[in-house]
Amino acid sequence: MTSNFATRILERCEALARCSEQADGLTRVFLSAEQRQANDLVLGWMREAGMAARLDALGNCIGRYEAATPGQPCLMLGSHLDTVRDAGQYDGMLGVIAAIECVADLNARGVRLPFAIEVMGFSDEEGVRFNATLLGSRAVAGTFKPESLDAVDASGVTMREALKHFGLDPAKIGEAARRRDELLAYVELHIEQGPVLEAEGLPVGVVTAINGATRLAIEVDGFAGHAGTVPMDLRQDALAAAAECVLAVERRARRGHDDGRSLVGTVGKLECLPGAVNVVPGKVRFTVDVRAPVDADRVAAVEDALAEFAAIAARRNVAIATRKTHEGKVAACAPWLMDQIGAAIAAEGIAVRRLPSGAGHDGMAMIDLTDIGMLFLRCERGISHNPAEAVTAADVETGARVLLRFIEHFNPSRT
Amino acid sequence: MTSNFATRILERCEALARCSEQADGLTRVFLSAEQRQANDLVLGWMREAGMAARLDALGNCIGRYEAATPGQPCLMLGSHLDTVRDAGQYDGMLGVIAAIECVADLNARGVRLPFAIEVMGFSDEEGVRFNATLLGSRAVAGTFKPESLDAVDASGVTMREALKHFGLDPAKIGEAARRRDELLAYVELHIEQGPVLEAEGLPVGVVTAINGATRLAIEVDGFAGHAGTVPMDLRQDALAAAAECVLAVERRARRGHDDGRSLVGTVGKLECLPGAVNVVPGKVRFTVDVRAPVDADRVAAVEDALAEFAAIAARRNVAIATRKTHEGKVAACAPWLMDQIGAAIAAEGIAVRRLPSGAGHDGMAMIDLTDIGMLFLRCERGISHNPAEAVTAADVETGARVLLRFIEHFNPSRT
Repeated sequence: MTSNFATRILERCEALARCSEQADGLTRVFLSAEQRQANDLVLGWMREAGMAARLDALGNCIGRYEAATPGQPCLMLGSHLDTVRDAGQYDGMLGVIAAIECVADLNARGVRLPFAIEVMGFSDEEGVRFNATLLGSRAVAGTFKPESLDAVDASGVTMREALKHFGLDPAKIGEAARRRDELLAYVELHIEQGPVLEAEGLPVGVVTAINGATRLAIEVDGFAGHAGTVPMDLRQDALAAAAECVLAVERRARRGHDDGRSLVGTVGKLECLPGAVNVVPGKVRFTVDVRAPVDADRVAAVEDALAEFAAIAARRNVAIATRKTHEGKVAACAPWLMDQIGAAIAAEGIAVRRLPSGAGHDGMAMIDLTDIGMLFLRCERGISHNPAEAVTAADVETGARVLLRFIEHFNPSRT
Repeated sequence: MTSNFATRILERCEALARCSEQADGLTRVFLSAEQRQANDLVLGWMREAGMAARLDALGNCIGRYEAATPGQPCLMLGSHLDTVRDAGQYDGMLGVIAAIECVADLNARGVRLPFAIEVMGFSDEEGVRFNATLLGSRAVAGTFKPESLDAVDASGVTMREALKHFGLDPAKIGEAARRRDELLAYVELHIEQGPVLEAEGLPVGVVTAINGATRLAIEVDGFAGHAGTVPMDLRQDALAAAAECVLAVERRARRGHDDGRSLVGTVGKLECLPGAVNVVPGKVRFTVDVRAPVDADRVAAVEDALAEFAAIAARRNVAIATRKTHEGKVAACAPWLMDQIGAAIAAEGIAVRRLPSGAGHDGMAMIDLTDIGMLFLRCERGISHNPAEAVTAADVETGARVLLRFIEHFNPSRT
C-alpha cells in the first residue's frame, strides 16, 4: 500500500476547489462550466489510475477498473462532485478522490480482484441549481423523473436547456441507468458533517442509515403597500407571516430534538419581494427542510408545520401555498456491508462506531438499485456546507486505508 | 382655465410609466437609462408649457416660467420622477405633471405672475438604488452629503460612477444647491398613499406635516451549517434570529398604532445567505423603517427595537450589527401655505381637511431651504408603492384646478 494517500488526496481536493464560480470560495453547481473543469480533472485522474473513464448521459463521471476476468459485476464506489453555495472542499469530492486513489494503489501493485470496481463522480447531489437533489445518482439508479427536465434555475434556464448547453442529450438520460446485475453494492466514503465522531475521538465510523428528508417550497402572498402610510392593522405583510413560519419550523424541530428523536428543521432560503426598504413586502418565497432517522417522526413534524402555516395564513389574511419538492425515506445501510466496513475499521485497530447520517447522500438514490454502505470520516466541529469544513491529513489517511482494506477484502456473497 | 386637465395628465402619467426597467410593471431608479427617458419627456413637456428647462448637477429636471418681471424669486412646485420597485404610476410623477399642466394653462392664457414658477422633477426621492432617500431635493436644498457618493448599488456601482455614467460631474453637485432668496416656497401635489381622504369622501386635503422616519440596515451574523447534521441546540441560525427581529419590529409598531400614536414599522427588505435549501443560514441582512408624526415616539420605538435585537442576539449567540441609514425629523408645513392651499380648496366648494403625511416627501429636504406646503389627492384604498395604485380622473381634475387656483392667488407675503 502506498505510504501517503493523504497528501495526494488533499492536493486533489484543493484542485477541485479551484473549479468554482466564485474567486473567494467554492460554488460548483450542476451543468456549469466549473463542473466541466472538475469532470476533466476527475476523468484524467481515473485514467491515470488505470480505469476506463467516461461521462454518462447526465454528466456523471464513471471510471471502471476491470476485474481479473473482464465483464464481472462491480463494487461501485464514489460520491458527488457538485457543491452547495460557498461550500467546503470535502463534502462529496473527498469520497470520489479517495476511491480513485484506492484504485490507483491496486493498479500500481498490479492487483486485479474477482469483481470490477467502478468509481462514480455524481454530477448533482446537492440540488442547488434546480432545487431537486440526487439527480446524478437517480439517473444511474433508473429513477430520474423526466419531468425534472422542465425545472428552471434562477436564470430561467430549464434543465433540458442546461443539459444541451453542456453537450448532453436530454433524450438519452435513460441510458445512464444501470442494470441491477451490473452492481454488487454501492459504498461511499464521506465526511460525517456532524459532531459525533469528533466527540468520541474516532477518525471513522460505519453509517447505519441515512435519515429521511422532506423539502418544501413555500410561497406567501400578502399585499404590498407603502411602509409609511398603511396602518399596522390593515397590513397583509408577507414577510411578517413568513417570519412566524420560520420560527414555527424551528420550534417544531427543537421539540423533535429535545424529545431525543434527532429531528432537524431548517428554512435555508428566503426571498422577499419586492424587497425595498419602504415597501411592505407583498410576497415571500422560502424553503423548508425537515429530516429525521425515523420516517414517521419526519412526516408528523412536516404535518405539524403545515398546520401551523395554515393557522398563520388565516390569522394574518395572507395566502400560503406549499409544494413538496423532495421526499426521501430513511435509507438503511445493508447489514452485510456494515459488517465488512466494520471489519476493515477494526483491522486498522480502531473502535467500530455505528451512527446514522443526518445528511442526505447518493445512497438514498442508489438503494433502489443495490445495497448501500457508507464510511464516515471525522470532520472538525461537524462543520459542513461552510468554507470552514476541515479534515486532518491523518484522518484522510486512515479513511483511505480503511476503504482500501474494505475493497481488497470485499466479499460480495452478502453474508 | 383649460376644461380638461385630467385627460392629458393621465396620458402623461402613462407615458412616464412606460419608462421602466421591467416590461410588465414600473420600476425606474436613480440614474438609470429609464430615468433618462423620463427626463427627456418631462423636459420636453416643460418647454411646450413655455418654460426654460434644464437638468441640474444631480439629474433633477427644472423648468422655469418667468415672472411678469424677469429675475424674481420663484414659487417652486413639483415632486419626484423615480419610483420604488414594481411601483404605481402616480406616486411622484403626478405632482410633476400636474404642475407642468398648470404652467401650460397660464402660458396658454398669456398670464404672467409677480413671481416666477419653477417646476421640479426630482431625480431621487425613494432611495431604492443607493438605499439613501431624497438625494435630488437634498442637492437642491444644499444638504446633499458628499459621502453619499461612495454608496454602492446592488451591482457594486458607486453613486459617483453612476453619475459619471449618466453624464453628470460628481464634483459639481454643489452647483445644484439653490439660494434661500431664490425661493418663496415649495409646494407639492401628491397622492395621499393612505386611506383618510377616501374614508371621508374628499378628493383633496391639506397636509399639516410629514411624519419623521428612521431607517436602519441590520446585519445578523450566525454560523452557516449543514441543514441535516447540525443539531437544533448547536445552531446559530441567522434567519431564525432575523425572523424574531422582524416580529419584534412589527409588535412594537403595533403597540404604537394601538396607542393611537400612528406609528408604523416595516422590514421591507431581507436577504438570506448563503440561501440554499439545505444550509442553515449564516448571514441575514435586512432593513427597518419606522415612522411617526411625533419625533419622540419614533425615537422611542427605534430604541425599543434595537434593545430587542440585542436581546435576541445574546439569546441566540449571533451578532447583530445595526447602522442608521436615514433619519428624518417631522417636517411641519408652514401655516401660511396651509391657509392658502385651504382657501383654494374651499373656493372649489370642497370641505378643507387637514391631515399629516405618513409617507416621506421631498418637502422633508426642501424645508431646510424654504417653507413647504402640500396638497394631497385621494387614491384608491390608500394603495401605493404597488401597481394597483389608482386615482380617478375627476380627482385629478379637481387637484389640478386647486393647484392652479393656489398658484394664481399665491401671496408670498407669508401672512
